[in-house]
Amino acid sequence: MTAVPYLALIASVLALLLAYYFAKVVLRADQGTDLMREIGEAIREGAMAFLRREYRWVSVFVAAMFVLLLIVPIDGRPAASFAYLMGAVLSSVAGFIGMRIATAANTRTANAARQGAAKALPLAFKGGAVMGFSVAGLALLGISINYLLWVKWIGVDQAFQVVAAFGLGASSIALFARIGGGIYTKAADVGGDLVGKVEAGIPEDDPRNPATIADAVGDNVGDVAGMGADLFESYAGSIVAPVVLASLLVPVFLEGDSLAGSFGDAEGLLMYPILIGALGMIASIIGALFVRGREGRSLSGQLHTGQYVAMALTVVFAIVGTLVLFGGSPTIGSYELSAPIFLAFTIIVGLLGGWAIGFTSEYFTSEHFRPVKGIAQQSETGPATVTIEGIAQGKLSTLPAVALVVTMIGLSYLFGGLAFGEAGDVIGLYGVSLAAIGMLAVTGVIVAVDAYGPIADNAGGIAEMAELPPEVRGVTDSLDSLGNTTAAVAKGFAVGSAAVTALALFKSFSLTAGDQVFLDINDTAVTIGLFLGAMTPFIFAALTMSSVGRAAQAMIVEVRRQFAEIPGLREGEPGVKPDSRRCVDISTQAALREMLLPGGLAVVLPLVIGFIDVNALGGFLAGAVVTGFLIAIYMANSGGAWDNAKKYIEAGAHGGKGTDAHAAAVVGDTIGDPFKDTSGPAMNILIKVMTIVSLVFVPAFL
Amino acid sequence: MTAVPYLALIASVLALLLAYYFAKVVLRADQGTDLMREIGEAIREGAMAFLRREYRWVSVFVAAMFVLLLIVPIDGRPAASFAYLMGAVLSSVAGFIGMRIATAANTRTANAARQGAAKALPLAFKGGAVMGFSVAGLALLGISINYLLWVKWIGVDQAFQVVAAFGLGASSIALFARIGGGIYTKAADVGGDLVGKVEAGIPEDDPRNPATIADAVGDNVGDVAGMGADLFESYAGSIVAPVVLASLLVPVFLEGDSLAGSFGDAEGLLMYPILIGALGMIASIIGALFVRGREGRSLSGQLHTGQYVAMALTVVFAIVGTLVLFGGSPTIGSYELSAPIFLAFTIIVGLLGGWAIGFTSEYFTSEHFRPVKGIAQQSETGPATVTIEGIAQGKLSTLPAVALVVTMIGLSYLFGGLAFGEAGDVIGLYGVSLAAIGMLAVTGVIVAVDAYGPIADNAGGIAEMAELPPEVRGVTDSLDSLGNTTAAVAKGFAVGSAAVTALALFKSFSLTAGDQVFLDINDTAVTIGLFLGAMTPFIFAALTMSSVGRAAQAMIVEVRRQFAEIPGLREGEPGVKPDSRRCVDISTQAALREMLLPGGLAVVLPLVIGFIDVNALGGFLAGAVVTGFLIAIYMANSGGAWDNAKKYIEAGAHGGKGTDAHAAAVVGDTIGDPFKDTSGPAMNILIKVMTIVSLVFVPAFL
Repeated sequence: MTAVPYLALIASVLALLLAYYFAKVVLRADQGTDLMREIGEAIREGAMAFLRREYRWVSVFVAAMFVLLLIVPIDGRPAASFAYLMGAVLSSVAGFIGMRIATAANTRTANAARQGAAKALPLAFKGGAVMGFSVAGLALLGISINYLLWVKWIGVDQAFQVVAAFGLGASSIALFARIGGGIYTKAADVGGDLVGKVEAGIPEDDPRNPATIADAVGDNVGDVAGMGADLFESYAGSIVAPVVLASLLVPVFLEGDSLAGSFGDAEGLLMYPILIGALGMIASIIGALFVRGREGRSLSGQLHTGQYVAMALTVVFAIVGTLVLFGGSPTIGSYELSAPIFLAFTIIVGLLGGWAIGFTSEYFTSEHFRPVKGIAQQSETGPATVTIEGIAQGKLSTLPAVALVVTMIGLSYLFGGLAFGEAGDVIGLYGVSLAAIGMLAVTGVIVAVDAYGPIADNAGGIAEMAELPPEVRGVTDSLDSLGNTTAAVAKGFAVGSAAVTALALFKSFSLTAGDQVFLDINDTAVTIGLFLGAMTPFIFAALTMSSVGRAAQAMIVEVRRQFAEIPGLREGEPGVKPDSRRCVDISTQAALREMLLPGGLAVVLPLVIGFIDVNALGGFLAGAVVTGFLIAIYMANSGGAWDNAKKYIEAGAHGGKGTDAHAAAVVGDTIGDPFKDTSGPAMNILIKVMTIVSLVFVPAFL
Repeated sequence: MTAVPYLALIASVLALLLAYYFAKVVLRADQGTDLMREIGEAIREGAMAFLRREYRWVSVFVAAMFVLLLIVPIDGRPAASFAYLMGAVLSSVAGFIGMRIATAANTRTANAARQGAAKALPLAFKGGAVMGFSVAGLALLGISINYLLWVKWIGVDQAFQVVAAFGLGASSIALFARIGGGIYTKAADVGGDLVGKVEAGIPEDDPRNPATIADAVGDNVGDVAGMGADLFESYAGSIVAPVVLASLLVPVFLEGDSLAGSFGDAEGLLMYPILIGALGMIASIIGALFVRGREGRSLSGQLHTGQYVAMALTVVFAIVGTLVLFGGSPTIGSYELSAPIFLAFTIIVGLLGGWAIGFTSEYFTSEHFRPVKGIAQQSETGPATVTIEGIAQGKLSTLPAVALVVTMIGLSYLFGGLAFGEAGDVIGLYGVSLAAIGMLAVTGVIVAVDAYGPIADNAGGIAEMAELPPEVRGVTDSLDSLGNTTAAVAKGFAVGSAAVTALALFKSFSLTAGDQVFLDINDTAVTIGLFLGAMTPFIFAALTMSSVGRAAQAMIVEVRRQFAEIPGLREGEPGVKPDSRRCVDISTQAALREMLLPGGLAVVLPLVIGFIDVNALGGFLAGAVVTGFLIAIYMANSGGAWDNAKKYIEAGAHGGKGTDAHAAAVVGDTIGDPFKDTSGPAMNILIKVMTIVSLVFVPAFL
């Protein structure tokens, strides 16, 4: 059993080696023409500059939290402070590496696309996989190192605070990376697109448009770095939550007996999530190796193969691993783990549940199904009806997602209890927390596929800007549209796991507070907390959407200025170039400035409410988790549906490009931009940050 | 003390007499030209036809519920069934009377407007006041009759089920009237407006447009009848909730002693809400008499005077009434009502809270403040940015509304406890339930002012269609815009009271279930219920928005057909008339068909969940109430803000009519139509229907 953390160490080192190998492959590839190299350089420079400045701002916040964790009376000091720092640093490092390689892979993918999709696909995928395996590898590495350290030095009874602090560190980075990146990417995108309309006659990705480079940078800082930090946090959180919960359930198992410095057989329950993480990692590595650019096979088949191999192996490994670890039906306190196979079932429930949520997203956002076709149909009567139908479909899409989540919660709770022969007992909560790690066990390959999308998208933009032949753009477009489909599945995992992880952290919060928190909905403080918590995602959505609007306006003003003041720019005279750097700078500053208020609120609100009344905080978290999940699903799916309705019309439906119907669909798409790429994804991290802050600080509240 | 129900009887008869008098005044006024008479006739016919057909469909539902209440094992049978029927019938009667007079007042207001606003204002107000005092009078009449009956015949210990059943009857009508009316009005409005764009060159309210009459009918069935039924239900619910809650708290007071067939001194607590209803009614009658068409005084001043007089008198009456009823500091079981004045304070908290919520709505939807100006500003960059900013502002507007609601809950809970010298005790819940009746004590005058708006709006449409001189339209427009402001305040009362009433009913549900329901948020069933409940308003919004879209499409198809097939219609040749009746019919059928699914869900969902697991139902209701409140505020305010941003631009800002900015604002306004008039208002009734269904059926669930 003591081998588990070492197994996790080995798995994470393997993941990092794979990332290193893929990075080498990407960097060895040819960058193409001088113009491509130059454009790629500008994008990389802008993206890395944003990341550096973002980290500088965030480091102030991290330092403050570090000190705060040293001062306030929580358990596990000072180890918790250092675990916090480690979480923050490892997440930052993963983001840095991932984005460095993603911004190298884009030009190389564009260049490879000149030789066809079979050459370009593996390059884009490997670029994304560097992010994927850096994220998962570093997160698992951090957790296993922490585990090994604190078991030896601190003693297990204060341990959960240290693990939780690691998760909080990851959250701190994810919070600002998600919000800042989301605002950046949509400010540049919306601003750039609208300029095309306002200053008529400038198509998308046109090199004359000064905002084009900023838009490409935005894809990297939002969809690559922001998403990566988010999933680092999700993945870490999904392992942290069951570890913490297991350690808090130990008193339930022992029924009042003292711990005597060691959990004994109970330690297996703490190790189990780490074991699943390690096994899922190995499965993901194998899956990733299945994605090769074979001629003559469908592109989507190759990407899907990687995911499915990883998922299938995870199921097999989980069953075997569970039987090996718990095969002897160990007795833990007064409970016997008589049917450990049910724990493996909770993992499978999570894995299938995440996949199924992704599938429902796909249904609501793909042009092959009724919702998007209906939205496209409404484009015939103008932008208002497109918008109404898009909002309606997005809201409707919460139905299957919630149905799946509550089924997952119910089943994993049931299985968690059955493992101990006690269906319905509080120990079932352990099962619920395992569902999240089940869902995220294959994070490496999920992030790889998700980060692949913006790389392909960027490659397309570079092909356009570098004036490569149109067939190259055709190849990158085929890669890109493929990315949209797989990304829907990834988003399903991200949002589903956010809900279940937040829920598990919330249960941990309640258990930590113990008898001192009484979360009866009828308690007036809890009721008030519920209202405030449910409101918070609305306010968060409002703030982030307004931020995008303001930042986009600033961009528009700048682009107009350049067209007015730089002679020959609009006409595309040879040698006349826009001042792209200035636009990159505007996006950077706007994103950094605008991320402070929502980001700060996410941390400050639970602290303020917690210090006033910890029951109200319980209600607050419950309200925020539930509403945040709903808004995340709704905004992501409305946005995705509008996007694909536009593409569906551009492919020829309802008259195709240039019609009024197309113009209406473009309005829907623009409204959907902040929905799907700023406000929606920000909900995931919002609900997790608020619960993990509450969990870490609960001893100080009481 | 036994005089209280008789006082309520007298107050309600006075209200009905006032309504009768106002109806006479309206009907005596001149209807104007033959064309006006003919148009008015068409509108009235369409509206009454809709109401009749709606009632026919709903009567099937009411009959089924009547039988169900006889069969299922709830307390207070068969009286509960008859109380249910009485609630449904009285609500229907109020709707019928109110709409009959509103559809008579519209032509007469248009005619009076030819002599100036001073003549037209009192007529439109009196038309609305007939609805207002029919609603409030019949509701209070029904409650006081019920009270007198069941105290004598059934005994008070089973009484709460009977009162609750009365509320359920009112809810049943309100549910379908709100949803059906909301779909009707926006199908006709959106369909008619879009036809203007699609079949270019037809202005709004043009007599050539076959949908114009249907649009005018829609204002009556949605904004008059739907709103009236909603507030009948709210008002009844706000009195029912504290009565029920007080009867359920009696065991708390008595601490296990038996009731022995009578509440004794505790009965005062049951009578108190009825007393406040009676006193508020008298205050409202006096306030309504203050609204006269005096030359030379500002129109808004006159309408506001009526409201403020009613509110101020209610405060005075509540203080005096409280001291008279409880001045002797009666002892109730083991509690002494030592400081009854605090109960009056809860009334005042409710009244001021409702007014303040209305004021925040006003802030977010009036062109005098920053939010609407910001939305108008965004129109410069097109419909997408207008929409994004409107959504952001609507979501942001939940912040002050929630802040006010939680303050009201906290204060009224505190005051409820302090009245018994026990701050923080469970008896404080009684105070929370009183806040709702405080908010709605002046319902008569609030509904009057709210129904005044669509009458003035209709008068404008009639003036247009009857080709009266433009200055007449100018007068009706000034009346109409004034109505928008006062309606914002009325909406604040409606949505605030919905939240507080639903909360009070929810607490009653929990108390009824007693020890058999355990609403710890950490219970897995409660968690699952929370997710499902919070999801329901999203689904409800989706269904109602899609319904409007579908119904509007059907209208567009019909209007296109008429323009194509009726020669000379588009050109406006003399004597050529559109087939308006056909459009009215399409709206009617669509509204009735589309209301069934959402309406049915609101009743069926709590029943299904309740029979499966009553703890899950508790979580479900909590989630639905909180999220429903948030979505109601958000959708109403986004919609109102878009509407006024459009009007602000039409008044000359950002280039005025005919510019791209104006076109963008029109898109926002059209999106806002189902937001503010269909989905948003439907939330109020959704959350109350679900809680009251649960409350009535809870004995059957257990």
